Amino acid sequence: MNRTTSNMREICIKLLNDRGVDLDDIVDIVYDLQKKYVPDLTRDTCLDAIIRVLGKREVQNAILTGIELDMLAEKNLLSEPLQSLINSDNPLYGIDEILVLSICNVYGSIGLTNFGYVDKMKPGIIGKLDEMGKKTNKCHTFMDDIIGAIAAAAASSVAHNAEE
Amino acid sequence: MNRTTSNMREICIKLLNDRGVDLDDIVDIVYDLQKKYVPDLTRDTCLDAIIRVLGKREVQNAILTGIELDMLAEKNLLSEPLQSLINSDNPLYGIDEILVLSICNVYGSIGLTNFGYVDKMKPGIIGKLDEMGKKTNKCHTFMDDIIGAIAAAAASSVAHNAEE
Amino acid sequence: MNRTTSNMREICIKLLNDRGVDLDDIVDIVYDLQKKYVPDLTRDTCLDAIIRVLGKREVQNAILTGIELDMLAEKNLLSEPLQSLINSDNPLYGIDEILVLSICNVYGSIGLTNFGYVDKMKPGIIGKLDEMGKKTNKCHTFMDDIIGAIAAAAASSVAHNAEE
Amino acid sequence: MNRTTSNMREICIKLLNDRGVDLDDIVDIVYDLQKKYVPDLTRDTCLDAIIRVLGKREVQNAILTGIELDMLAEKNLLSEPLQSLINSDNPLYGIDEILVLSICNVYGSIGLTNFGYVDKMKPGIIGKLDEMGKKTNKCHTFMDDIIGAIAAAAASSVAHNAEE
Repeated sequence: MNRTTSNMREICIKLLNDRGVDLDDIVDIVYDLQKKYVPDLTRDTCLDAIIRVLGKREVQNAILTGIELDMLAEKNLLSEPLQSLINSDNPLYGIDEILVLSICNVYGSIGLTNFGYVDKMKPGIIGKLDEMGKKTNKCHTFMDDIIGAIAAAAASSVAHNAEE
Repeated sequence: MNRTTSNMREICIKLLNDRGVDLDDIVDIVYDLQKKYVPDLTRDTCLDAIIRVLGKREVQNAILTGIELDMLAEKNLLSEPLQSLINSDNPLYGIDEILVLSICNVYGSIGLTNFGYVDKMKPGIIGKLDEMGKKTNKCHTFMDDIIGAIAAAAASSVAHNAEE
Repeated sequence: MNRTTSNMREICIKLLNDRGVDLDDIVDIVYDLQKKYVPDLTRDTCLDAIIRVLGKREVQNAILTGIELDMLAEKNLLSEPLQSLINSDNPLYGIDEILVLSICNVYGSIGLTNFGYVDKMKPGIIGKLDEMGKKTNKCHTFMDDIIGAIAAAAASSVAHNAEE
Repeated sequence: MNRTTSNMREICIKLLNDRGVDLDDIVDIVYDLQKKYVPDLTRDTCLDAIIRVLGKREVQNAILTGIELDMLAEKNLLSEPLQSLINSDNPLYGIDEILVLSICNVYGSIGLTNFGYVDKMKPGIIGKLDEMGKKTNKCHTFMDDIIGAIAAAAASSVAHNAEE
């Protein structure tokens, strides 16, 4: 990794923090996803995997783009009908899921399965983000999928390392 | 749909039956996936959706290819190291999940989330297939993913119809 | 198709027009892509395929989202570093290509090959959009990929109909 | 990379050789794809990128699976209708393209565009494989896509390294 992608990682971590998510919240999800497959799993191993995922350019680009759309929707700055589709987290919108595919897949196809699972079960911070998006004036249409995808990719990275 | 794809659907349904799965087993999964979102959902609606999914060329091709690989592995007819990778359902193989992406996606990206969920939870027949694959001389490396993907795509089709 | 998706199609066609693209420009590309495979191909057949593609929800959502990001970048309304990444059409950004995958794939995996080809060759209006994006204050980072993907999907639809 | 993936790489290179392709043939394609973007590109840089691509598990699995299906089709060992679909390289089969997506995407979405381009233009060895598949009793339904995808992924790797 060079200076640009390392700086970009810092920008992304700050952006996640500003939107209410600590890396520790993501560690919770990764740890729960993998502990039954990797008996001696530690939280530090999970954190390392998350840091690795956040060092990838395609992950950084997806984070920057998705969170920007959430923030623009909160400020009512998007054109209609896009403003309403994103602000209401319309189930037929689907671009949030497409966007985060590039995150899920950075460590191969296992990431996809993990993502589908967390997207449905909404563990920990993901459930909170989803609820805040529905009950407050916050828009988390992309944010909950982004966090789910980072967790899923990190879990896949942990799994690969454990297998090999 | 023309005669070819209609015939191909019959061939695929027969192949699923021969490998131990009735469409009714898939209805169980689709119904469970969607009943909380679609209050007046019937099993007939689920069956119709499955039939629609099985009418798609890309679905038919994935079914034919995946089941063929399972059957060849059972008969020990594949070259090494592929024979061992498929026969042991090696978690780093991943081609089973890649192959069924084309099934999941026939009704948009919701299918992906549903697939990830069933792939992890292994409800009903999927759990049975997985267990038979592990405990008997049957090989279901592709089969369980194929059934999960058909159920996921059918659930997406039901969801789309209910929303629109 | 119901009233919503039909209205959405009209909105998308108007948006494409406002950004400088007529459906006829897309017909040019589809016709050139498929004429050597389908000897009796007419421009009307190509136009019908484009209209079909534009009736799909996932296509409409990708168009609305991508063009919005282009327009926000033109008005300098995005946060940094996203503003610079999109405005300069940075080759490592890649979200434009991810976004339009959902368009390419509506008629199966042939769409992907066609998209890769037009994305590289930039025939007709796609080359013009790309050049305007580079030489004027217009931003076409998403727009050229969107047009390429619509053309690719329509070409796949024509191919499927001709084969079956 | 550990011993397993390194051994697997050797197995894959031997398999490609047995099916008529030297790494040097793939270097030709990568070099032609990237030389106009990277002025000081050398063939050694291209070869290094190909070696890196061939060290990835998902690439190895796709190669082993695709070539096995080609060889089984040549020996007439697949069940109908799959035998005919693969042996005739039926344009609606599409599983060959799905399978190699996992190869294209190992270095991000640029790989997809490069793949679409080479799949359509069939430069060098890819054209030869395609022609042999059509005119002799060899089956190269998966092989030509596999080579195109390896070249596309290696070209993306070269592009990323040059940009960063």
